[in-house]
Amino acid sequence: MFKMNLSKDAKETHVKLATYKDGSRDGQLVVVSRDLSMAHYATGVASRLQQALDDWNFISPSLQDLYEGLNQGKARHAFPFDPRMCMAPLPRAYQWADGSAYLNHVELVRAARQSEVPQSYYTEPLMYQGGSDDFLGPMDDVVCVSEDHGIDFEAEVVVITGDVPMGSDADSALEGVRLVMLANDVSLRHLIPPELAKGFGFLQSKPATAFSPVAVTPDELGEAWQQGRVHLTLQSTWNGRKVGMCEAGPEMRFHFGQLIAHVCKTRNVRAGSIVGSGTVSNQGVEHNGRKDWPKGYSCIAEKRAIETILDGKPSTEFMKFGDTIRIEMKGLDGMSVFGAIDQTIAPLVPAAK
Amino acid sequence: MFKMNLSKDAKETHVKLATYKDGSRDGQLVVVSRDLSMAHYATGVASRLQQALDDWNFISPSLQDLYEGLNQGKARHAFPFDPRMCMAPLPRAYQWADGSAYLNHVELVRAARQSEVPQSYYTEPLMYQGGSDDFLGPMDDVVCVSEDHGIDFEAEVVVITGDVPMGSDADSALEGVRLVMLANDVSLRHLIPPELAKGFGFLQSKPATAFSPVAVTPDELGEAWQQGRVHLTLQSTWNGRKVGMCEAGPEMRFHFGQLIAHVCKTRNVRAGSIVGSGTVSNQGVEHNGRKDWPKGYSCIAEKRAIETILDGKPSTEFMKFGDTIRIEMKGLDGMSVFGAIDQTIAPLVPAAK
Repeated sequence: MFKMNLSKDAKETHVKLATYKDGSRDGQLVVVSRDLSMAHYATGVASRLQQALDDWNFISPSLQDLYEGLNQGKARHAFPFDPRMCMAPLPRAYQWADGSAYLNHVELVRAARQSEVPQSYYTEPLMYQGGSDDFLGPMDDVVCVSEDHGIDFEAEVVVITGDVPMGSDADSALEGVRLVMLANDVSLRHLIPPELAKGFGFLQSKPATAFSPVAVTPDELGEAWQQGRVHLTLQSTWNGRKVGMCEAGPEMRFHFGQLIAHVCKTRNVRAGSIVGSGTVSNQGVEHNGRKDWPKGYSCIAEKRAIETILDGKPSTEFMKFGDTIRIEMKGLDGMSVFGAIDQTIAPLVPAAK
Repeated sequence: MFKMNLSKDAKETHVKLATYKDGSRDGQLVVVSRDLSMAHYATGVASRLQQALDDWNFISPSLQDLYEGLNQGKARHAFPFDPRMCMAPLPRAYQWADGSAYLNHVELVRAARQSEVPQSYYTEPLMYQGGSDDFLGPMDDVVCVSEDHGIDFEAEVVVITGDVPMGSDADSALEGVRLVMLANDVSLRHLIPPELAKGFGFLQSKPATAFSPVAVTPDELGEAWQQGRVHLTLQSTWNGRKVGMCEAGPEMRFHFGQLIAHVCKTRNVRAGSIVGSGTVSNQGVEHNGRKDWPKGYSCIAEKRAIETILDGKPSTEFMKFGDTIRIEMKGLDGMSVFGAIDQTIAPLVPAAK
């Protein structure tokens, strides 16, 4: 069951992981090939991702062995990988804390309502604690109670951590990053203002979050993983139209080590915690005397903020039932790194009594 | 392994549960006798509490059988129950959402800073999403980075839920209550104002929460469980001095069904979610022309608010390293229902590098 890790650099961990639906709450852990074409159950190594995270140093070498075999076409029981079979890599988690690491997102939204960005936002991450008991798979419907809530997507990069002790600094915390994936941090925009006014954070305005089919180790990202940031382009496609081609690297003001260190300032962060970057967002540029945002947007609220800044009022509406949202990131080789989040907005059908 | 449930009323579920430390992250599920004197491993039925919650209707009858045998002195491998061996009943959870159901707490704190309570607080629960990856056992130290953070206890009643679908009303949500227990929702008071000013809720100001040794089914509370409230007295003893004898029932403005319904308004609540009442707090009374709070307090912030209202400034300091806090609730028979939370405040000792 346990084999020696024969990879060239023993310090590096290379693996791509997903969780297949099997009717259970935690699903079945599968190893996915680098090109996302093939998969293999991790049975015998670990059945659930949380189990692997709880004992990462012992279990990850065996997952890596399986990954190498799969990539070389030598895994005996490999089968074609199907993202429609995927739950979130971690279908439920013990923590989901989401930062606002791209200050442009905050600046845009604030500029639209003519409010200054507090100076502290540039030196300390803004972050909220989210619900983590009911995550969505990459192709699960986003079920909403009402279109009137102002349904929006938010395309983000997130990490899953190991154990990070209370009081760890950003460098130590960065070593606690185990896996990287994408998220659609669905927001109900019209519920946000009254909730934030109360100061207690988001509760009803952040429904279930969805994640990419595959979670990958930072080492697997190669040169794209630098100083706790993913230097790749995050693509958002709304109803088949590409609306965002945002660079996730350079403008991420706080790297993942800093975001995790923010969480663990007064408490331990335990294995399987998910920490997010916030909506990926790039600054606008001056263009013929008019400001322009050529990279597009990773959430509709930004588009509406841009419209408000340029035209005095927003003209783009939030999402309707039947709308689709696709979120994906291509590697330096042009291949999809995490697979695509590809969801449809759907109305809640109340259960029969 | 699975026996018929022979209890008189098959609709009722009677059991007291705890989780013993065994070096693992989730511990070992034990059934505890009604008088808290004896315990028995639930091995063969369920090894972890989350496992029982995931499949409650199937597993709880077997736990109840074990409980009945234990109470009758017929459990073969029973041993004396020791709360020092306890982790939190659920040592880590997929959700921890804490309400502010006792409006007097909010009114006191607001009155001290001469601010009105918003009208919406009387019709809709105020609630925050907390971290749930690293809970404390009932006798674990409360480890804090600094006394300067304003360390405070908060004595609360909390429930653990089963699955509650999105959009459930308060009555349906109330049926989702599986277990009841006590919590010490530790707060770092001096970190709260800047965090709440940002609107994103608590993150650093709410370190790890501690729970009572034992979680009990609502049916086990008998007449003390009425309309989603626990009608018993919550005792708080700070450094050996009884400072709170607060009635948890009548002044709980929103019952647990209403609190859970608030969480599931826009998303599903999944099995093993913990939902809290907020600090238990009772209204003051007029006494010789001066206002008095004879029931005492379940957190120091309230004591300081009372001092500010009466004397213009607070005179009671927050907790220091070495301070102790004991939180307990006696049943109508005078016996401890959940066992006692009994903790010491301790400084963080950084790990050797």
